[in-house]
Amino acid sequence: RYGYFGEVEVIRLMFCQVSGCLTDGRIFMSVSGEEMVSFNNMDTTGISMLQGEKVEVVLLTSSTDRVTQLVAEKLAKNRGCQVVQVGENPVLDLEEFLKQKDLDWKHVAYMGNEKADVGCLEKAGMSAAPADATSVAVNAAKYPCRHAGGLGAVREFAEHILLQNEKVKSKNKQ
Amino acid sequence: RYGYFGEVEVIRLMFCQVSGCLTDGRIFMSVSGEEMVSFNNMDTTGISMLQGEKVEVVLLTSSTDRVTQLVAEKLAKNRGCQVVQVGENPVLDLEEFLKQKDLDWKHVAYMGNEKADVGCLEKAGMSAAPADATSVAVNAAKYPCRHAGGLGAVREFAEHILLQNEKVKSKNKQ
Amino acid sequence: RYGYFGEVEVIRLMFCQVSGCLTDGRIFMSVSGEEMVSFNNMDTTGISMLQGEKVEVVLLTSSTDRVTQLVAEKLAKNRGCQVVQVGENPVLDLEEFLKQKDLDWKHVAYMGNEKADVGCLEKAGMSAAPADATSVAVNAAKYPCRHAGGLGAVREFAEHILLQNEKVKSKNKQ
Amino acid sequence: RYGYFGEVEVIRLMFCQVSGCLTDGRIFMSVSGEEMVSFNNMDTTGISMLQGEKVEVVLLTSSTDRVTQLVAEKLAKNRGCQVVQVGENPVLDLEEFLKQKDLDWKHVAYMGNEKADVGCLEKAGMSAAPADATSVAVNAAKYPCRHAGGLGAVREFAEHILLQNEKVKSKNKQ
Repeated sequence: RYGYFGEVEVIRLMFCQVSGCLTDGRIFMSVSGEEMVSFNNMDTTGISMLQGEKVEVVLLTSSTDRVTQLVAEKLAKNRGCQVVQVGENPVLDLEEFLKQKDLDWKHVAYMGNEKADVGCLEKAGMSAAPADATSVAVNAAKYPCRHAGGLGAVREFAEHILLQNEKVKSKNKQ
Repeated sequence: RYGYFGEVEVIRLMFCQVSGCLTDGRIFMSVSGEEMVSFNNMDTTGISMLQGEKVEVVLLTSSTDRVTQLVAEKLAKNRGCQVVQVGENPVLDLEEFLKQKDLDWKHVAYMGNEKADVGCLEKAGMSAAPADATSVAVNAAKYPCRHAGGLGAVREFAEHILLQNEKVKSKNKQ
Repeated sequence: RYGYFGEVEVIRLMFCQVSGCLTDGRIFMSVSGEEMVSFNNMDTTGISMLQGEKVEVVLLTSSTDRVTQLVAEKLAKNRGCQVVQVGENPVLDLEEFLKQKDLDWKHVAYMGNEKADVGCLEKAGMSAAPADATSVAVNAAKYPCRHAGGLGAVREFAEHILLQNEKVKSKNKQ
Repeated sequence: RYGYFGEVEVIRLMFCQVSGCLTDGRIFMSVSGEEMVSFNNMDTTGISMLQGEKVEVVLLTSSTDRVTQLVAEKLAKNRGCQVVQVGENPVLDLEEFLKQKDLDWKHVAYMGNEKADVGCLEKAGMSAAPADATSVAVNAAKYPCRHAGGLGAVREFAEHILLQNEKVKSKNKQ
């Protein structure tokens, strides 16, 4: 599209919902009380690729989902990410966060799969939803992934972000 | 369909089979004796959406499936649902239940995936079966889901119920 | 096919490989040493349906797969099945078994997904392979399932057996 | 293709990335700290088939993935495989390994699913990537599998290797 990259800025930070984006949305519960979720190595490698190109990655969890919260904290510790807990309107929580970082939404990539993510999906400079996200999220996302949540969607979006950043940087040099 | 909504009443209660609808039907068994099932966050969010619009959600489990029973009870506690154990003919168990609640089948939505669910799928005002349900259940359901059990079928049906309730309410106001 | 049912006898016993037929072939291994497999409720209901129509169900496991063996024994105990461990040539093990039961292969249904199952798939009166079985097994099976292992293949074959038994019985009455 | 088999040598060793090839790339993490991955019996049978035809199988894990490393060691012990840990450039690690074994890349089959595997996928006499691998790996692989990682890709490649070895051996006898 003519002039498209002219409107895109370099992405400096990616917000990523854990449940349904980095996981497939499933929570395993056992009779004895154990609870598990799964991550895909291709997706966590995508996070490392972003970090390697100086794109900060911030994982988002919901206050109503204790399991994903606890497991996301373990993952974040291994991967050097921050975890932010968001409520029913993530825009409010994250605008505060961005102000402290002195960042604008146009420098932000956002990935989410739920109705609550629609506001952020619209505001962020780049945004994506996994292929199996709720339809309102897919419609609001600027980039609809071919991969489902927990099965490569985060990796796919990470590669998309890095490619765009490269194009913008090369254009800015001209 | 002309006059269709004239025959549909506001849904006040949803019965949902846990095994195969809210789960994907799988039970994990370990060598040491641990047993697990999985739920999808998109589906449990669907339950909360129904409750938020004053549609009561009642989870159904089978007397022959101890694992799903135990895990459903944990889930129900978190989500404020009731769990009802049904036998080989759920219609009998649930008519008693509805009588106590002073509710008629036309105010009830029912989701099931098995041969035993056919009677209820036919009686309920609205009914659905996951895409991977047994063929007798899919045929008996008024609404065949595009999503499989444990992978969004409950969420899909929840959104369908809420949309219909809205239409019926808006029609009743005219 | 003309005369088809004339050649089929009533099935009195079903042999079912556990790994890849009743499970999806996956074995979960944990860092701490725990091992799990999963079963599908629709499949185990299929086993109960066969038993209810007096078709005995015998689960087969391999001597080289300790995990599936141990978990199959738990399942078999709940469901009233026998478990038989077979080696590299199941035909040899099972002919001995059938002789003791005074049963002929024409009264037997067999489900398997591996190269080692080919002999039995050819000998049994009815035979099936899951949709995701190895190609030699699919080719040897008289009935190729539409469902994959652990995802309804056993249920599908159980319904197929019961339908055939009904047809044969009704034909024999004429 | 004319002359194709003339360029292929008998394969004597297969390198196989564990994460994403022998597993589906998922790591399950529990609240209590347990971590699991899954293997498919059809794939591990493929490993045994290669070993039975005197093709050595060497499992590859990454230094950054502790879980897969630990579980791969258990699997390797059961199956009589060696596990080699590779870094960001597996070619370097494995050339050393091959020199010690006095083997050339043309006698080696390689399976990988990541960007880091591209060098080895190009160097090996035969190479493959699972259907759900990253696109750079699929493009670099000489044989793109129809099966996904953890769902038969290793088995598929094993059968392909054995078939090619048979063809080369029969051609060499002429």
